[in-house]
Amino acid sequence: MKKQTILAVLLVLSVASFAQQAIWGGQNTSSPQINANNTVTFRLDAPKASAVQVTGDFLPTQQVDGQYGKHDVPGTVDLVKGSDGVWEYTTSEALKPELYSYSFIVDGFKTTDPSNVYLIRDVASLTNVFLIGGGRVDLYKVNNVVHGTLARRWYQSPTLNMTRRISIYTPAGYETDKKQYPVLYLLHGMGGDEEAWIALGRTVQILDNLIAQGEAKPMIVVMPNGNAAQEAAPGESALGLYKPTFELPKTMEGTMEASFPDVVKFVESNYRTVNAKSGRAIAGLSMGGFHSLHISKQYPDFFDYVGLFSAAINPDKAVKSPIYDDRDAKLKTQFSKNPKLYWIAIGKSDFLYKENEVYRKLLDNGGYKYTYYETEEGHIWKNWRIYLTEFVPMLFK
Amino acid sequence: MKKQTILAVLLVLSVASFAQQAIWGGQNTSSPQINANNTVTFRLDAPKASAVQVTGDFLPTQQVDGQYGKHDVPGTVDLVKGSDGVWEYTTSEALKPELYSYSFIVDGFKTTDPSNVYLIRDVASLTNVFLIGGGRVDLYKVNNVVHGTLARRWYQSPTLNMTRRISIYTPAGYETDKKQYPVLYLLHGMGGDEEAWIALGRTVQILDNLIAQGEAKPMIVVMPNGNAAQEAAPGESALGLYKPTFELPKTMEGTMEASFPDVVKFVESNYRTVNAKSGRAIAGLSMGGFHSLHISKQYPDFFDYVGLFSAAINPDKAVKSPIYDDRDAKLKTQFSKNPKLYWIAIGKSDFLYKENEVYRKLLDNGGYKYTYYETEEGHIWKNWRIYLTEFVPMLFK
Repeated sequence: MKKQTILAVLLVLSVASFAQQAIWGGQNTSSPQINANNTVTFRLDAPKASAVQVTGDFLPTQQVDGQYGKHDVPGTVDLVKGSDGVWEYTTSEALKPELYSYSFIVDGFKTTDPSNVYLIRDVASLTNVFLIGGGRVDLYKVNNVVHGTLARRWYQSPTLNMTRRISIYTPAGYETDKKQYPVLYLLHGMGGDEEAWIALGRTVQILDNLIAQGEAKPMIVVMPNGNAAQEAAPGESALGLYKPTFELPKTMEGTMEASFPDVVKFVESNYRTVNAKSGRAIAGLSMGGFHSLHISKQYPDFFDYVGLFSAAINPDKAVKSPIYDDRDAKLKTQFSKNPKLYWIAIGKSDFLYKENEVYRKLLDNGGYKYTYYETEEGHIWKNWRIYLTEFVPMLFK
Repeated sequence: MKKQTILAVLLVLSVASFAQQAIWGGQNTSSPQINANNTVTFRLDAPKASAVQVTGDFLPTQQVDGQYGKHDVPGTVDLVKGSDGVWEYTTSEALKPELYSYSFIVDGFKTTDPSNVYLIRDVASLTNVFLIGGGRVDLYKVNNVVHGTLARRWYQSPTLNMTRRISIYTPAGYETDKKQYPVLYLLHGMGGDEEAWIALGRTVQILDNLIAQGEAKPMIVVMPNGNAAQEAAPGESALGLYKPTFELPKTMEGTMEASFPDVVKFVESNYRTVNAKSGRAIAGLSMGGFHSLHISKQYPDFFDYVGLFSAAINPDKAVKSPIYDDRDAKLKTQFSKNPKLYWIAIGKSDFLYKENEVYRKLLDNGGYKYTYYETEEGHIWKNWRIYLTEFVPMLFK
């Protein structure tokens, strides 16, 4: 009898705790099961339920009439109950490569898949994930390549008078060589934090893989918390295990941009960095794109590379901050210094598409050079992962 | 109208994706709600369910007749459905300070609380958690103190011929001062990995707090993966998002112990460490206690501090490894070198209690000096967090 088996049997016999039950783990059902032909089977052991559905971004969206008019919602499909009480559904078609999210709906109640331990938090929601590999999506996987280091640190922001948590990726080799590295500052969207690009954006995997393939220069990636009122991601500060919210103070009113030099100063005095415009890039999604736009024009000597991913462009009219004053003059100064790359990406159905179109026209009229990249779909992480894989190989070359 | 509100409304109107739905987050119900008197209210919005229960380690255990005889299981209690379709239960008494785990059971199906984004994985199970502060448990919270850095790195193990993931905590100040730091090697139990002590053990919080209070010396804490066949925690290796299992090869058959000098060598050549016996401690829980016991006697000049937390003691009879040969002679050598602390801790109802009792007798008979610490309850994380808070202040003094 193997030691492990003995231990396991002993645990069953003598254990009086909840924690130990945990080792038996979820359900014995296999879900999601990715089949050889890339169809996917979902299973849930819930013999007493009267209806089980699965909803997720692997299904076509459905249009519904809502409070504000017609809009699209994620598709939903029924699982069928087997004689063993296990509900099951297999996709009718092979799924394209992607990192997908899904939830089960059990008797009208939306919940996680107890057979799948992989969940990602997006603001206040946890959804299960699975990955279908192939093509670009292989960049989102952990592959057999050399790996960089991901550190969660805290830095002092004199401007905000706060100690704040920050996520920093250093490429493989950083600790043992003596080189100076360029830095990409990568900013999250509204409701996000210093964990968002790691969990939802697969940044560590994308960087490890692009660098290993020789497609990207080895670089440091700094992921600060862009909510200027927040010390750290939910659960990581003295506020405790509170419920995350989408609405936070001090997000798009100038404070974050005004305090951003604290981040750069911290990074450049704590890491072996290329301390020059040619060694700095800034990019962000949605609110983080807004921050990237306004930071890069506020500090025109800081960044040679700027990426606006599905970016919000204009501050709210009610917001008064010197950061947003004199936009056109600041843009003129920024572009007179010939940034090496000003990259704008957005999806065709993004609600910020029109705002971006107007902004591109303004850049055109000024004769300002930028690169434009357009994708299908809208304001979703699928696009932001794509944009990261496109943007990173263009940096520091 | 605030920019945030505008963005939010626009998202509702125009968004066609699953990901965006996520920003609306779980349910509007508040659960778990920790009341002023430390009772806790659980709520679940599931109007179509016919029965909802909550189970967790905040409830007394129940004894049931199982396949192997009577044994204890976590208690379960019913929620009551309100007219609004929200089920609710409030504990009859104030809960003692602790980091608690719980799950809901909806029509017989065990699931997570959709209003609580805080979950911890233990092998293949995810359970929600909440924390009642006070006393020792305040050490498990993120407090307003200076914080160390937590890095996930990869190291090369020549003995295993593998690149392996490792979690390393460096105390506040490490990056900016020039001091040498002592190192605690902290090992997980069966089914665990390099994430276990971080998530379930609250190691970062405990170290930050004990160091800030002056109760512990600033130290580096190294949390390697103790499964010698495994590169990294589930989901963090090229094996992808597979279902974790309790049964792994190469866990208690000598390979981990034989390869352990690779970890020490990596740490001491990559960090500013006190490279002496007086600057090294090793401790672990269950299987990790077994590893600590056998590593510390195999390399008697490595560690001045040894912690066996609910440790397994004896290898399986079928296992043949030079690591486990000549135990008594090796112990004699180890203790002849006067380790500064040999600390054994276990809970009264632990299934390994008897094995530990026999081992303590053997140490007594040899005249070997050790310190013994006994707690209530058994083989549970609650005890291992307690042991860590007791052990760490005794190190490197």
